[in-house]
Amino acid sequence: MFLTQPLHKGRREKAHETAVVCGDRRLDFATFTERVSRLAGVLQKLGMARGDRVGMMSLNSTRFVEYFFATWWGGGVINPVNIRWNPKEVAYSLDDCDTRILLVDDLFAPMAAQLRELSTSLRTVVYCGDGPVPEGMVGYEALLADTAPVPDAPHRSDELAAVMYTGGTTGRPKGVMLAHGSLYINALASVAALPRDTQDAAAIVAAPMFHVAGCGVALQSLLRLVPVHIVPMFDEVAVLETLQSARITEMFLVPTMIKRVIEHPRFAEFDLGSLRLLSYGAAPIDAALLDAAMRAFPGTAFAQVYGMTELSPVVTALASHCHAPGPRREKLLRSAGTPISIAEVRIVDGNDNELPHGQVGEIVARGPMVMQGYWNKPAETEAALRGGWMHTGDGGYMDENGFLYVVDRMKDMIVSGGENVYSAEVENAIAQMPQVLMSAVIGVPDDKWGERVHAVIVLRPGMQASPEEVMAHCKEQIANYKCPRSVEFRDALPLSAAGKLQKFQLREPFWAGKERRVG
Amino acid sequence: MFLTQPLHKGRREKAHETAVVCGDRRLDFATFTERVSRLAGVLQKLGMARGDRVGMMSLNSTRFVEYFFATWWGGGVINPVNIRWNPKEVAYSLDDCDTRILLVDDLFAPMAAQLRELSTSLRTVVYCGDGPVPEGMVGYEALLADTAPVPDAPHRSDELAAVMYTGGTTGRPKGVMLAHGSLYINALASVAALPRDTQDAAAIVAAPMFHVAGCGVALQSLLRLVPVHIVPMFDEVAVLETLQSARITEMFLVPTMIKRVIEHPRFAEFDLGSLRLLSYGAAPIDAALLDAAMRAFPGTAFAQVYGMTELSPVVTALASHCHAPGPRREKLLRSAGTPISIAEVRIVDGNDNELPHGQVGEIVARGPMVMQGYWNKPAETEAALRGGWMHTGDGGYMDENGFLYVVDRMKDMIVSGGENVYSAEVENAIAQMPQVLMSAVIGVPDDKWGERVHAVIVLRPGMQASPEEVMAHCKEQIANYKCPRSVEFRDALPLSAAGKLQKFQLREPFWAGKERRVG
Repeated sequence: MFLTQPLHKGRREKAHETAVVCGDRRLDFATFTERVSRLAGVLQKLGMARGDRVGMMSLNSTRFVEYFFATWWGGGVINPVNIRWNPKEVAYSLDDCDTRILLVDDLFAPMAAQLRELSTSLRTVVYCGDGPVPEGMVGYEALLADTAPVPDAPHRSDELAAVMYTGGTTGRPKGVMLAHGSLYINALASVAALPRDTQDAAAIVAAPMFHVAGCGVALQSLLRLVPVHIVPMFDEVAVLETLQSARITEMFLVPTMIKRVIEHPRFAEFDLGSLRLLSYGAAPIDAALLDAAMRAFPGTAFAQVYGMTELSPVVTALASHCHAPGPRREKLLRSAGTPISIAEVRIVDGNDNELPHGQVGEIVARGPMVMQGYWNKPAETEAALRGGWMHTGDGGYMDENGFLYVVDRMKDMIVSGGENVYSAEVENAIAQMPQVLMSAVIGVPDDKWGERVHAVIVLRPGMQASPEEVMAHCKEQIANYKCPRSVEFRDALPLSAAGKLQKFQLREPFWAGKERRVG
Repeated sequence: MFLTQPLHKGRREKAHETAVVCGDRRLDFATFTERVSRLAGVLQKLGMARGDRVGMMSLNSTRFVEYFFATWWGGGVINPVNIRWNPKEVAYSLDDCDTRILLVDDLFAPMAAQLRELSTSLRTVVYCGDGPVPEGMVGYEALLADTAPVPDAPHRSDELAAVMYTGGTTGRPKGVMLAHGSLYINALASVAALPRDTQDAAAIVAAPMFHVAGCGVALQSLLRLVPVHIVPMFDEVAVLETLQSARITEMFLVPTMIKRVIEHPRFAEFDLGSLRLLSYGAAPIDAALLDAAMRAFPGTAFAQVYGMTELSPVVTALASHCHAPGPRREKLLRSAGTPISIAEVRIVDGNDNELPHGQVGEIVARGPMVMQGYWNKPAETEAALRGGWMHTGDGGYMDENGFLYVVDRMKDMIVSGGENVYSAEVENAIAQMPQVLMSAVIGVPDDKWGERVHAVIVLRPGMQASPEEVMAHCKEQIANYKCPRSVEFRDALPLSAAGKLQKFQLREPFWAGKERRVG
């Protein structure tokens, strides 16, 4: 199993069918593979030896996908850079795994000079934008035109394919080392877990490709030779236009993006009937949003995936039938679903003893999709992978039907006056107020109750609401002890680059200097 | 990736849900895994060391599945014995790979004495029937009751899991060596290629489990924790009763079995509405049979798979949408479909040069599902795997849309008077005669035409037809040069243990001493 395999298949089986599209760039499998095999030659000319890391800092594009496959084709390892990071963080990640070649697009070319100063590893900057090649860089297309195709490097399943940096909220980012076989089998098992037909299929990638989610969605499509339509950066209208014009059949978004898409004023203008599967991840979906989304996309199956970079990334999936209206739905929607076929998941206590069903502990996972380790961090690697299981750091429990509940993440429980309050339930209640665009409910320290239910709310443009109105509304919906005791309004909520709500950023100022019990 | 992984998942996620059923034996995942871990201990007590082969000669049963997983759990390698073979052939296969332990059921226990005489390897015979333990054997259930569970052996993806004997029509049978990862990923990729939901899913295994097809179907189900309902031996009523009573959702049969099932006099008695996917293999399906089957199973998706033991076994799949009525159907039904995601397929000439689309050559395949080699046959292994590709020995071509056509197998072309006649087309025409149960059309030598179209026909019980009627019927359906010039009637057609029509047996007497050009 190796990641260039789809290109060999593609040029043989679907030479003249579309492989990747972005804007007015459309490449069939023959052309795409030809360009990849030339770009691999370019990278080798620029000094990429077997196993060397190559970075890219760019919005999504067809060249981003070429970079993935060309690095692998030439025997290298990708290190796609988080585009939300500042130059110091980027330089750290380049130096940490000795990345000497970096590709930059028009947006990030201006950062190159600063990166050269900060980084000790960086040697060559390749400009993959569309304008004239900036001073001190080499040009992507010119090099490509000037280089002959090279043969695909021989591959092994356990060969390193990617170093993907993650974290950084506590300490330095860590480079997650993923093997060819891990990324490959995860994509395949994800397809098996969320069944979909390849007939007339087309996928859209709207998540950032530097993130394992965007990369994984592209792999899930290309390994089935399903064309990938790329949106440079998430944007409601770009997504809607691509869905319609390319007759997209499968899409992955995070719930906040789904909300933005279906609530966009121009939504009704588009014919979106082609969409068969809408999967979401990074957060559970609340019932009100799901209902609205199911009305907006009638006939589309909804499914959730849960995972993390260290797991290549998917580890559980909540199948579409769990989203159907019914008495069990509210409970199931809080779940991250059941482990995909290649993944074993168990819940352990602090001594790595397995806990019985229903008891909260740390979620650990085992299987061929687990990372090889953190680059150059043997102690962290050993801690994370102790006993052969990836320790996710997420708290959760598994029910007697094998459904995983991630407590810290979506059910982040608030213990207020001895009662358990689940944020998702409160957020679901608040979401029913027509003025509310989105909300995050957290526990904050309270002298009387231990923790207090606190709501952070973003209102729709032009709408108004008072804390008292929010509290009164909630009292009609849910038990008194679950209602927010304090409410604040903000213009936006803190989201990660992958669109994941970062509640820890909301909690931080409240908990500074205090210890919060989790799980 | 290793094959005992589903049991670890199953006892964690679905402890009290059904894993395997046969007759009145029904085991949940907890019980099944417990028995497997005890049986692994039994096999170790009986001398099975790491990598040792263990044989089983039995009809399908829950114990057959226990044998698979217990051998793997204990670190051994399965060698399931072809139950159609005579004692000499069985002894050859046991000795060839030094199989010292053999499990036999009630049907094959009587052969054990003779096997002991013929085989130099065989040491221990385990009786896994339901009567008293015969002289000279040890009893399965008694040993199981007396043995504590052992821990699962540590596994690697490239660890040998099975030696499966194949061939024998030319020379000695060859032991195909398949790794854990190869069987695992093939099952997973087969599921991804033929999408199916796990919700309320149940599979039936009616193909013999000693064959990689029956074994593979069981793996496809169990790795998704979908229960497997086992039929001891193919039988129309047993299949129909199981389909109805277990609300079976997925089934694999060969086309001749589909025909026998849907034409059984009691067919209409059964409620078969649960069946979602009916896959078939070993032979293409003719349009008349498909139409009848689609009427018999309305709402069921049909799909074809093509493969061989050396490929673990699936390599291409013809998706269900290709079976829908339409102008392209007749052509598509002759195809074996497109390569599954993990498989690269190409067509090569005698010097292993790839041939362009449409040209007939040898079908070769590459990917993680390819065998490790033939046991103890380095020369044959090197020949079969030269250049890293499995040489199937099948002739075929690939069209410009990536569909594979296996010429020797189903399109076995007859060259008569310079015209190409495809057997499938003639067989389709003959199948429309109400008197005909099944037919095989072959080319036989003819002084005038080079080859002559010859039909071998099995009539339905109580029905009659003359060669002249068959020829007259065909003339109404197809061009004159395609019509059979000679017709014979037989009681049965030669089928392999897997139900595959063995045309070579029909051709042999005609071609003895003559050379036939193929492809």
